[in-house]
Amino acid sequence: MQSIKTIAFDADDTLWVNEPLFRINEDKFDSLLKSYIDDDKITSKLYDTELRNLKHFGYGIKGFIISMIETAIELTNGEIKGCDLKKIIDWGKEQIDHPVNIIDGIPEVLEKLKKKYELMIITKGDLFDQESKIARSGLADYFDIIEIVSEKDEDTYSSLLKKHNINSDELLMIGNSLKSDILPLVKLGAKAIHIPFHTTWVHEEVNSKDLDNSEYVTIDKVIDVLKII
Amino acid sequence: MQSIKTIAFDADDTLWVNEPLFRINEDKFDSLLKSYIDDDKITSKLYDTELRNLKHFGYGIKGFIISMIETAIELTNGEIKGCDLKKIIDWGKEQIDHPVNIIDGIPEVLEKLKKKYELMIITKGDLFDQESKIARSGLADYFDIIEIVSEKDEDTYSSLLKKHNINSDELLMIGNSLKSDILPLVKLGAKAIHIPFHTTWVHEEVNSKDLDNSEYVTIDKVIDVLKII
Repeated sequence: MQSIKTIAFDADDTLWVNEPLFRINEDKFDSLLKSYIDDDKITSKLYDTELRNLKHFGYGIKGFIISMIETAIELTNGEIKGCDLKKIIDWGKEQIDHPVNIIDGIPEVLEKLKKKYELMIITKGDLFDQESKIARSGLADYFDIIEIVSEKDEDTYSSLLKKHNINSDELLMIGNSLKSDILPLVKLGAKAIHIPFHTTWVHEEVNSKDLDNSEYVTIDKVIDVLKII
Repeated sequence: MQSIKTIAFDADDTLWVNEPLFRINEDKFDSLLKSYIDDDKITSKLYDTELRNLKHFGYGIKGFIISMIETAIELTNGEIKGCDLKKIIDWGKEQIDHPVNIIDGIPEVLEKLKKKYELMIITKGDLFDQESKIARSGLADYFDIIEIVSEKDEDTYSSLLKKHNINSDELLMIGNSLKSDILPLVKLGAKAIHIPFHTTWVHEEVNSKDLDNSEYVTIDKVIDVLKII
């Protein structure tokens, strides 16, 4: 890790808790629809709608809310009551406004790394929602560069490296998603540290065959970053 | 306009048609709800919901879709049918996927200006939607800098000027919204050209008292930019 000059952090489920908030609303959604229909695949049908809608809405809670409404209408053949759809919208607003819970160890790690490295956030999702979380997290001042992108693939990372004049071998990326945070950067020649989060969206899971020849370090807790670099 | 080095364009209703697509869906929404209720203020009640929801959703079509659904449920006391709510979602998707119609004269103006100035897009709204429109517009290559922001106020413009090392008196902003494109920049000491668009969202209208002492040029057609600078 000698060559590293810039350290980039993913945000959702790396700096703060995110995915469990989706799980909570999926569970509420499942319970609500079970009062209409007998179906043990409600959550997976919701996921199918989300995936189908990604091309229209991109990532984020607003698309998630619309997908929940669409799935509820479809699965109940339009029988779902207005007051129940209103509940879904309210759950979504609560999720958007939910306090930002910083993951243990993050402030200590940022405090130390800031003294020696250029620090960056690279986060995917809804601009308004991500900006709001960054502001409310209280972490913004640790970072020299904040980039909110609509997709995290090799093309996106390539453009960001070019935009900020960063050589890929001078970048270390830290994140919880192998698919979005680790693999594309390893392919570009950057270093990467994977910190799995207990909850991962199915869409972010990768096939084990994609992991061949990939070089990255996996750790349990972000505080261990300080032992590695 | 001698000192100008950078010319920034607003995107929606400056580079391409946007607001009329909202009006089309508002009209469809009005007709749909009139089949449930006798109310001549449906559109203004929808606007109230949108305004109330801005703090949760920010600007953009996804928030607009959710606000239409919420208003429909409220105004019909939850009586609106699932199939009608599904229509609203589909209208929203059609709006998102609508072909990008470039405003007359834009390619010619950009072609000429590109030879002499650094060109920039500064657009407000949903990241995914704006990126998609920029890509589909075919105009991206004209621009040196593209900035998608969640709000257009003095603070945002100040940060952008600082980020790109632009002196305010070397910037010319061109846009259709006095509130978002013209006034904040005039206050910062930049030049501005206002090109009113035939359709303006109520939220973007400004009180005439805010216009005192403001200095900017108003033209009818973007092609006239070439006569001014």
